Amino acid sequence: MSQDKSIVVIGCGASGGTAAQFARKTERKAKITVFEKGKYPQYSKCGLPYAVSGIIPDLNDLIEFSEEWFKKAGIDLFLKTIVEKIDPDKQIVIAKRNKSIIKKSYDSLIISTGANPFIPPIEGLSENNNLVEGVFSVRTIEDVENISYKLKKGKNAIIVGAGLIGLEMAENLIKKGLKIIIIEVLPQILYNTLDEDMAKLLYSTFSEKVDIILNHLVTRIERKNGKINQVFYKNKESGEEKKIKTDILIIATGCKSEVSLAKNAGCEIGKTGGIKVNEKCETNIKNIYAVGDCTEYFDFITKKPLTIGLGSIGVRQGIAAGTNAAGGAYQLPNGVLQTRTSEFFNMEIAAVGPTINNFDETDIVSGKFNGFSLPKYFPGGRPITIKVTANKKTGKIISAQAIGENAAQRINTFATAILGEMTIDDFRKLETAYAPPIAPTLDAVTLVCDIISKKINRK
Amino acid sequence: MSQDKSIVVIGCGASGGTAAQFARKTERKAKITVFEKGKYPQYSKCGLPYAVSGIIPDLNDLIEFSEEWFKKAGIDLFLKTIVEKIDPDKQIVIAKRNKSIIKKSYDSLIISTGANPFIPPIEGLSENNNLVEGVFSVRTIEDVENISYKLKKGKNAIIVGAGLIGLEMAENLIKKGLKIIIIEVLPQILYNTLDEDMAKLLYSTFSEKVDIILNHLVTRIERKNGKINQVFYKNKESGEEKKIKTDILIIATGCKSEVSLAKNAGCEIGKTGGIKVNEKCETNIKNIYAVGDCTEYFDFITKKPLTIGLGSIGVRQGIAAGTNAAGGAYQLPNGVLQTRTSEFFNMEIAAVGPTINNFDETDIVSGKFNGFSLPKYFPGGRPITIKVTANKKTGKIISAQAIGENAAQRINTFATAILGEMTIDDFRKLETAYAPPIAPTLDAVTLVCDIISKKINRK
Repeated sequence: MSQDKSIVVIGCGASGGTAAQFARKTERKAKITVFEKGKYPQYSKCGLPYAVSGIIPDLNDLIEFSEEWFKKAGIDLFLKTIVEKIDPDKQIVIAKRNKSIIKKSYDSLIISTGANPFIPPIEGLSENNNLVEGVFSVRTIEDVENISYKLKKGKNAIIVGAGLIGLEMAENLIKKGLKIIIIEVLPQILYNTLDEDMAKLLYSTFSEKVDIILNHLVTRIERKNGKINQVFYKNKESGEEKKIKTDILIIATGCKSEVSLAKNAGCEIGKTGGIKVNEKCETNIKNIYAVGDCTEYFDFITKKPLTIGLGSIGVRQGIAAGTNAAGGAYQLPNGVLQTRTSEFFNMEIAAVGPTINNFDETDIVSGKFNGFSLPKYFPGGRPITIKVTANKKTGKIISAQAIGENAAQRINTFATAILGEMTIDDFRKLETAYAPPIAPTLDAVTLVCDIISKKINRK
Repeated sequence: MSQDKSIVVIGCGASGGTAAQFARKTERKAKITVFEKGKYPQYSKCGLPYAVSGIIPDLNDLIEFSEEWFKKAGIDLFLKTIVEKIDPDKQIVIAKRNKSIIKKSYDSLIISTGANPFIPPIEGLSENNNLVEGVFSVRTIEDVENISYKLKKGKNAIIVGAGLIGLEMAENLIKKGLKIIIIEVLPQILYNTLDEDMAKLLYSTFSEKVDIILNHLVTRIERKNGKINQVFYKNKESGEEKKIKTDILIIATGCKSEVSLAKNAGCEIGKTGGIKVNEKCETNIKNIYAVGDCTEYFDFITKKPLTIGLGSIGVRQGIAAGTNAAGGAYQLPNGVLQTRTSEFFNMEIAAVGPTINNFDETDIVSGKFNGFSLPKYFPGGRPITIKVTANKKTGKIISAQAIGENAAQRINTFATAILGEMTIDDFRKLETAYAPPIAPTLDAVTLVCDIISKKINRK
């Protein structure tokens, strides 16, 4: 083939941007085009809550790869450009920019259309498909611009949803001097991140700073002079309804994949609503890849389908799709580990693997250990609690969760163990690094496994 | 057997003490006796340098398990008691306390006689087998008591040896206001800990605070009024000799295993001078185990014999020997990983696996990456440099070294990968935990492996 390969990427979020970059790394001569409907090039969505408080001082700081960067890399980036159609037979993408139509043929296409905030069915929340004044989602730089503008006036905020984004927003709004109430329909915070017992540990710290109302459903809002004024919420069990005044309302109830383009092109949509992809990020349509929050892959342990919701996974899919689309070979592991972390009020949390709600209790065995980051005799140690769960039959590690000092790095050792399909009995003999100012002789990561090992061998 | 099992442990260091504890955990009814020649029960040798500076305020803080603790655990601990002989045929240990003789029969014996400081052949260093006034080793609480007493008078200190203990002592003596010179015979610092290129990174920070003289051999010392006064050292290549005045001299040139009791009992001594043990910590003599710095085991990667010199390994041997001696079953991995760490002037270093000096250059492939602990847009990130080496043929990870933020925890992920015999290509796809205040989307631990993967696939 004398002509250089044409690779088209739809969406310049973390996954799409990464895909374009790795396509370039793989094939110096490829013609690479990225269409992005928004006005910003690749930026960090995960950083948005920290721009609300000013920890990240400028929204422009969130831009990880600038237009200039893409230009230097020889990647044609079209901002404010909406792709209207994919023609998989002719291998053409049709996009619109202002009023002009762009037709671009591709040898490989990478769909990275992301996800939209899931807006729960709360009465009065939107008007003409727009959220009413004082109601915000947290997904884009524009969202944060809107919220920040509003903060100058508001004093009270209600957040719907106690997932990672909801809690991150809570902490950052508190730093701005707001009073926060979180309303969560489930009986625990961080339902998808931590088991209930671990979530409770964080809850006890968190609820000192923020009112968290669990088990309650927000039913409707009432406006005054067009702006939000009151929020009505009811007890999920008793049905009792209460109301509360607020200046702003933040919707942090998750996302749903944006798949309309892919669906129209014939891409198979999975049960969870994402575009089905394999370990190479291929869809069912020839030469079409998909990456990031718009896709469905599956869990490494349960092999159950899930929509991708973590930037870390999206970026890795971007590496795979970009490399493969450009003629390289990159295969992701047989499922995602879902390694995840965050930090609240100086308390680090992290986890890997599914929460125990995903398993039959009789198939698994868990252990929990309260340790310390340093030997007891060395000053400055901080607590660390680790919970680990293993398959009772095989002894293989299936999940780990940690709260406290260096939780994320400690969870990375478990992520490694899960990826390597190690058993509790192998892992608990791990020689961890020891020095008095750094870590104890026996770290909590292996001590917790001793507990589980005993339980397994006792059965 | 109607009578309860008798387990005798010789030496109450970290390894011996741990062995006694795990014997008790394994068999509630066993009769457990520990003989310790010193006056202190189990304490942290690794904490000693930090007691010199006062970071650990009281030497007694180093005691991890008190006499009372052992009493409560039902373990008979005899301090200031010297074991004079082991009779492996009659299964009896003969010990001496003050002037009384204690004969103790055993069903299982655990030898944990530790190691003695290696005193290099420096002329004038000792008199009647004792170090002369102003010269110290760093191995026991008594050593630190002696050093601390001397610090009130001294202003200058020379340290012989730029290994972990030498450097740790240097930093802690600086904190006490002393001026330090380190003299090292080898061409790099931390020869057994880091590859030369990694050691250089630390050297450049370290040498801003401490004079480090590499490639020089201390030949003799000169005393004045009985006390140390001058140190003579010569260039290893040119032979040129220089001298320097000092108030104290610290010997930090490593240890040699104390094996005389074991040897006399017929235990096989390995090439490296330690008691040969297997994965159960058994010696060649029936019912005799050995643990800690007095033993020789082997490296996980090279399978070459080595004497144990890390507390973290000794403690794990203690777990194995104590469990096995009491009738349980505990098998260590097939070699030691040598995971190790320390911190100097707020710079954390860590490593796992042998340094590259242990390999033929054509068999291995290395990569190095300078990363950052946080995404670039998030304030507070700190640098981290990671070097990883893999087997060129199999792609398996054989060593990793890190300098910078959370070096030790990052190295623990590599320790897990080595223990799980993972390849570079598996490990580099690891989903590490990502959140802006915690870690970047792609951590240095996997980015360094991308570099190596390319090198391997290019070959």
